[in-house]
Amino acid sequence: MSEQKIPYKIYLEENEMPSAWYNLRADMKNKPAPLMNPGTGKPMTAKELEGVFCSELVKQELDETTPFIEIPQEIRDFYKMYRPSPVVRAYNLEKYLGTPAKIYYKFEGNNTSGSHKLNSAIAQAYYAKKQGLKGVTTETGAGQWGTALSMACAYLGLDCKVYMVKVSYEQKPFRREVMRTYGASVTPSPSMTTEVGKKILAENPNTTGSLGCAISEAVEAAVTHEGYRYVLGSVLNQVLLHQSVIGLETKTALDKYGVKPDIIIGCAGGGSNLGGLIAPFMGEKLRGEADYEIIAVEPASCPSFTRGKFMYDFCDTGMICPLAKMYTLGSGFIPSADHAGGLRFHGMSTILSQLYHDGYMKAISVKQTDVFAAAEQFARIEGTLPAPESAHAIKAAMDEAIKCKETGEAKTILFGLTGTGYFDLVAYQNYNDGVMTNYIPSDEEIANSIAKIPQFN
Amino acid sequence: MSEQKIPYKIYLEENEMPSAWYNLRADMKNKPAPLMNPGTGKPMTAKELEGVFCSELVKQELDETTPFIEIPQEIRDFYKMYRPSPVVRAYNLEKYLGTPAKIYYKFEGNNTSGSHKLNSAIAQAYYAKKQGLKGVTTETGAGQWGTALSMACAYLGLDCKVYMVKVSYEQKPFRREVMRTYGASVTPSPSMTTEVGKKILAENPNTTGSLGCAISEAVEAAVTHEGYRYVLGSVLNQVLLHQSVIGLETKTALDKYGVKPDIIIGCAGGGSNLGGLIAPFMGEKLRGEADYEIIAVEPASCPSFTRGKFMYDFCDTGMICPLAKMYTLGSGFIPSADHAGGLRFHGMSTILSQLYHDGYMKAISVKQTDVFAAAEQFARIEGTLPAPESAHAIKAAMDEAIKCKETGEAKTILFGLTGTGYFDLVAYQNYNDGVMTNYIPSDEEIANSIAKIPQFN
Repeated sequence: MSEQKIPYKIYLEENEMPSAWYNLRADMKNKPAPLMNPGTGKPMTAKELEGVFCSELVKQELDETTPFIEIPQEIRDFYKMYRPSPVVRAYNLEKYLGTPAKIYYKFEGNNTSGSHKLNSAIAQAYYAKKQGLKGVTTETGAGQWGTALSMACAYLGLDCKVYMVKVSYEQKPFRREVMRTYGASVTPSPSMTTEVGKKILAENPNTTGSLGCAISEAVEAAVTHEGYRYVLGSVLNQVLLHQSVIGLETKTALDKYGVKPDIIIGCAGGGSNLGGLIAPFMGEKLRGEADYEIIAVEPASCPSFTRGKFMYDFCDTGMICPLAKMYTLGSGFIPSADHAGGLRFHGMSTILSQLYHDGYMKAISVKQTDVFAAAEQFARIEGTLPAPESAHAIKAAMDEAIKCKETGEAKTILFGLTGTGYFDLVAYQNYNDGVMTNYIPSDEEIANSIAKIPQFN
Repeated sequence: MSEQKIPYKIYLEENEMPSAWYNLRADMKNKPAPLMNPGTGKPMTAKELEGVFCSELVKQELDETTPFIEIPQEIRDFYKMYRPSPVVRAYNLEKYLGTPAKIYYKFEGNNTSGSHKLNSAIAQAYYAKKQGLKGVTTETGAGQWGTALSMACAYLGLDCKVYMVKVSYEQKPFRREVMRTYGASVTPSPSMTTEVGKKILAENPNTTGSLGCAISEAVEAAVTHEGYRYVLGSVLNQVLLHQSVIGLETKTALDKYGVKPDIIIGCAGGGSNLGGLIAPFMGEKLRGEADYEIIAVEPASCPSFTRGKFMYDFCDTGMICPLAKMYTLGSGFIPSADHAGGLRFHGMSTILSQLYHDGYMKAISVKQTDVFAAAEQFARIEGTLPAPESAHAIKAAMDEAIKCKETGEAKTILFGLTGTGYFDLVAYQNYNDGVMTNYIPSDEEIANSIAKIPQFN
């Protein structure tokens, strides 16, 4: 099909939507290291994990060999309510940049949770419901995951308890109200409702919270309430599995028009979006069928890939969760309060960590004022107000397109526009008022934080 | 095509999108009454209107005979950035209600402005730019129109001055920030920046504002700034013309599946969404080619159709705009401050007023707590958090579907889901907290307000 015929937005037909998730681990020679029990120093068994997670999700968490896992019909029906999401050709951005590059983005923001998080939320809530549970507990940072989970739980009639990172709770009062409208209860974290929360507050009464703290509280709440399990919106293998729907849809859409990306860019916090977007492309790369330049983009204020260490660490600040082998800044690392761009997790998906370690992808970090500048330009040119998280990928994609302008190369760039910024207006206001700052941790600060990681390696 | 094959969402292909707007007036036997000059008591001439509006838009405003007006390529390209919008089959809502009715909605919320308003904003901004103007002024109530206009102006490089109804400005601080991100300036109305604003404040210092006040200020700002014109997001004939894209897309989408609605429902404030959604269907009805039951839904606290009078009245509180013959509660009518559901305009589109007067459609009013109850149910079942405005139509559609359950009729119901409620969380919070009230104006209050309308009839 000729170049001219590519529409602004490619939507798949309902019957072209994926019927199975793709399990990237099946094609990895070096599998991601297993979650480790800090008590025993041995890999977590299914039985141990089932105290915290739903049984079916534990199976998915541990499955390293099945390449495709069928999406249950009920989840596929839910997906049909807000998917397929469009692959958009950024004609206006190309024109604005004067670049010969062709820019595409997969837009995951067209649902009330405002992001891709709903793809895994509905799956996790579905398996909890199927197991006969009363409800689930979770943490949320920017609030996208909590909103997504509350939507999924409302749909299925499950109770939903959300621990929200305190700084986000305060900066995003309306996020709480959306979750409440969907029937969830929301507690700012750290809180006095859990033992681990009390302990963290005793040590650091003025903390603005972190994902790591909130995870500790949510896990404690799950194991101390009968009929509850904990669910997590990123980092885990199961989450990347569910999020593969992003990449599968993208690949089908691009294949229809014979488009093959040269560069694939995604923002990276815990890795859920990046892992989902790149999944089928990385699969081809791992199988030696195709090559792609894959770039993870993270905030300079929370640079796990680019400045972290690849080792076993706790996923939570309270050190009550299993250990994961990942690029980490230390589970005690809390990003500076001036950081408004999401992607606040100290670690990274073990799958992505292994792939990065093995050289299958690269990573860069970007400053938040540059991110917001890119976000505002993008909003004015392409219409959509992006989530700050997504704007990390926008910034990198724009930089790659500008490089193409300089070299004259007509590369095809694909990036993930993970969500919308409707609940990030306090951050946009700071940017518009010119008071946004860029705290970047010093080498010493990061070294100190990493030094505190208990030695299980 | 069999019933089973209808997908959850019908998206048109890019080449199926309308290339011309449909001008409903061409098929009306009784044309809407012309705008009247309050000074002369005669219809406004094109020349008079051109002091306030762009020339091309004046032409469209006055054109009663051309059935189809071509959409300029630049506007069609902009439409491609966020259109076509989906026609959604509300399978989950049908199941939840246990109704034999088939429910469809046209969802206009998948763009950053959060509503259908962008369809006319880009058209009006385009003609302003084409005329070589520096910028435009406008008013906004809930903020959807102001956001839409600021997006369109940012895209085209036009200046944008927005007067925002004070109560909305205060309830929706983040709306202002979105508009600022798109480069607009936003002033709470009434303000001290205009003569009419000063006058209104002197008479009623504690007013929470109204669309009527804000219109007066925006018009004054337009005529007192060189190179500016005023643009309006509803009520006008030109706006209904642009919004016909909603109905045209809907009809094409439903025709593809052989679906013919029995009932068409839209919320009605000034009439932009309702007029756009029903346009091609009403055209068939006017030409005797088909019949549809068409229902306008308005808030009980601002019931222009159901309790207003069909007569000439000012479109603005300050009485500086032309007069329109419409169903009106009096240009001095300001909805109670407890009213959070949008649709605050005292009057109504002259086109819709004439059609209602001639018996081509009916109107009902609904209480706001019922509207928010429907909104919350819809959010939990269908996923999308609706704008309170849109929830008026949801409430009426649910009621019609429940009637079908009682009678056993499998009617096909189509309604307009005009936008999302992401910036209405203060209102949702009040509803969730159980403190939302329902002020309904008394007969005496409405009679007094109508009695103050200057007699031009």
